[in-house]
Order: sequence, then structure tokens, then C-alpha cells
Amino acid sequence: MWSDAIPDPAAQQEIKRKAIIRAAAQAFSRQGSHSVTLDDVAKRLGVSKAALYRYIPNKHSLILACQDEALDIAGQALARAISEQGTGLAKIRQSLRLYLLDTIEQLGVPALILEDNALRGDDAARILQKRDSYESRMRELVSEGCADGSILPVEPKMAVFMLLGAVHWVAKWYRPDGRWSPETVADTIVGLATRALEPAPTSTLAIHLPQDQAREDRHAF
Amino acid sequence: MWSDAIPDPAAQQEIKRKAIIRAAAQAFSRQGSHSVTLDDVAKRLGVSKAALYRYIPNKHSLILACQDEALDIAGQALARAISEQGTGLAKIRQSLRLYLLDTIEQLGVPALILEDNALRGDDAARILQKRDSYESRMRELVSEGCADGSILPVEPKMAVFMLLGAVHWVAKWYRPDGRWSPETVADTIVGLATRALEPAPTSTLAIHLPQDQAREDRHAF
Repeated sequence: MWSDAIPDPAAQQEIKRKAIIRAAAQAFSRQGSHSVTLDDVAKRLGVSKAALYRYIPNKHSLILACQDEALDIAGQALARAISEQGTGLAKIRQSLRLYLLDTIEQLGVPALILEDNALRGDDAARILQKRDSYESRMRELVSEGCADGSILPVEPKMAVFMLLGAVHWVAKWYRPDGRWSPETVADTIVGLATRALEPAPTSTLAIHLPQDQAREDRHAF
Repeated sequence: MWSDAIPDPAAQQEIKRKAIIRAAAQAFSRQGSHSVTLDDVAKRLGVSKAALYRYIPNKHSLILACQDEALDIAGQALARAISEQGTGLAKIRQSLRLYLLDTIEQLGVPALILEDNALRGDDAARILQKRDSYESRMRELVSEGCADGSILPVEPKMAVFMLLGAVHWVAKWYRPDGRWSPETVADTIVGLATRALEPAPTSTLAIHLPQDQAREDRHAF
């Protein structure tokens, strides 16, 4: 009907759920999860709290759904990067680049930094397992890079902590209305952070931003 | 009196104030500032809420005091590093190393990651100015390193964002009871992150942790 121009009810429901997650991710990113209410999210979407409740029953579900979505994006970015030809380092670089770009596109924020106690209960265990699996696959890529010579000898856990720190931190300073495009941010931050692991990197960066483009308002912490 | 073994009242007051900040920093780091109460902090210290109020009148003052203290440590680390001989990169490396070590020693946590809205009001403006001044001096060191050849051509703001991301992120995974000493963590994370900026780094890291020492429990996000 209507040449499929109108999504069917199940698809509409999924679209609405994703809109809620996107609005919540932006609110969490700006205010911290503790100070955001379901009402805040409903207001951002221009819907009633009752309408929101049909999709997300409470605040904890909302936090879980956001974290779930962010980890899905991270996991899919990693899977796409792994499926491509290349060295361990090339796969890491591509996976982190896609992670930043896809998170900005789908959630409107580059990453979600949650307080340690934001996730609780049985549902949380599933999310934490997903995160552990992601980190463990990242560490395997570091080991792969050490073995294929694209990464210098390094303790994989430390290397992943350093990389994910640089990448997640983008959430603290990135502005959607800033002068740096998502691509520029992703290429520069991921390019710099992964350069740290190259045994013999070239002496110039692939991307060199002129200083006068640096007019971001946000700060590093 | 007593060969100065007993601190005078003013010194005792300062010792108590620092103990409160330390306890609060640890609670904030673990739970996020929004879910920590003055009562939580009093309990950690084994004192009454009334005793706490003599030094810190409310939650907002406590957040400000912690952030103030962390920025003082960062600023002092930077000043010490700048006073030493060396290239721009050497000063950056030393300042970040001291920042991590001194924060762990004085606050018991490697860094404070606060929600964007945790600081409000007039007092906050002073803190934000202190943070801006720190970041601006860090960017100047990057420019100094670009000029003296110790850092490859790079946009200083992006470079500082990358470095401070890797360094602040330590707060998410560092465990005081873990197997890595503060020195090992600081040397490895700062060594890796600053290597990203070297025009022609050596092909091995100064510190190479064997994998079997990597038994930290915490995760990268």
C-alpha cells in the first residue's frame, strides 16, 4: 500500500523507540543520567509522558536502552571493520572511526559516558556482558596488530584503555553545531590516538587542520 | 609545643577540609556527583553530618571544592613541568604524569569526570576560568612542541582533547587495589598518548608491560 512510503505499525513503533533513545542520549550526555527525567525526554520529543511510557516504562529502562543501542553501534562498527581486509591497526582505526560517526549520526552524540552506578539489576548484567565482549574483541585486534607488525609491542588492555579514552572523551567537547564536521573529528582523534600504536608512523598527520578552524566552544574537561 | 608534632588549629582545619574533599572525590568518582549526599561523605569519614557542615555548607560547595582541588593539582603539575628544562613534548609528558600521580595520591582517584551541569552559579565561573586557563596553557605547550620540533604539525586543541581524554579516562578503569601501580599506569597511558604526537618515535615503548600482569577488573567504559 502507498508503495511502502508509509512504514507499517511495527516499523513505526521501532522509529518511535529510536527517537526516544536519541532524545534521551542527548539529554544524558548534556546533564548526566541522574538529573534527566522521563518528562524531560518527553518534552524534547514534544509528546506526552503517557505516550513515552508505551515504549519505555521507566528511567532505568531508558538508561539501559541507550547503553544497549550505543553498544550495538560499537559492535556493528567493529564487525564491519573486522570484515574488511587489512592489518590489526587498520581494523582498529576503521572500527573507532565508524563508532564515532555512527553514534553521532544515530544518537546525535559521539558517545555515552555513564556514571558507574547508572546500570543496576539483572538487565544490567546483559549490557555489561556486551561491553566486555566488545572490549575483549578490541584487545584481540591489538594482539592481531602486534602479531602482523602493524602495532608495536604493547599491553593490549592498556592500549584499548588509551584508545577508548580518547574516543569516548569526544562526548565531553564535541558540538553538533561546531565548525568541525563529524568526519573531521573522527579522522583527527582516531588518527592521532591510533598513531600512538604504530611502530614507525609517518612524520606528518594525514589530516592537518589549520589552527584558525579551531573555534569549538567546549572544553576538554 | 610538642616539637610541632601536633598541627596547629588552622592546619588541623585544612587537614580536615582535605580529608572531606578526598572522601567526596572518591564517592563522586564511583557514583557520579548527582547521587552522592553529604551524608554519604560523612559516613565515609566516620563523622557526623553536622561536623561536615562546619567545613562544607552544602553539596554544591563540595562539588566546587573537589573540582577546585583537582584543577589546583593539574595546574601545579603543569607549572612544575614547565619549570623544568626540555622540549614542549617533554613538558606535556611530565605535566600529565604528575597530574595523574598527584591526583591519585591526594584525592585517591586519578581524575574527576563531572556531569556537564554539576557546576552552576557564580562560583562555577571561577572554576571554569581555571579550567580554561589550564587548557590554554596545555595548547601553548603543544604549539611550543610544534615549534621546537618535538611535536609534529597538529591542531593544538585536537591534540589536547586527545591527550586529556586518554588521561581523564583512567578514572573509569583505575583500581587502587589493582595490580598496576599508579606509576605504571601513569607512565604507560601518558607514554602511549604522547607518543602519538612525536614526529619520529622509537619503535618500542619505554615501558612494556607483560600481558600476564594485566589483571585489572575494571573496563574501558
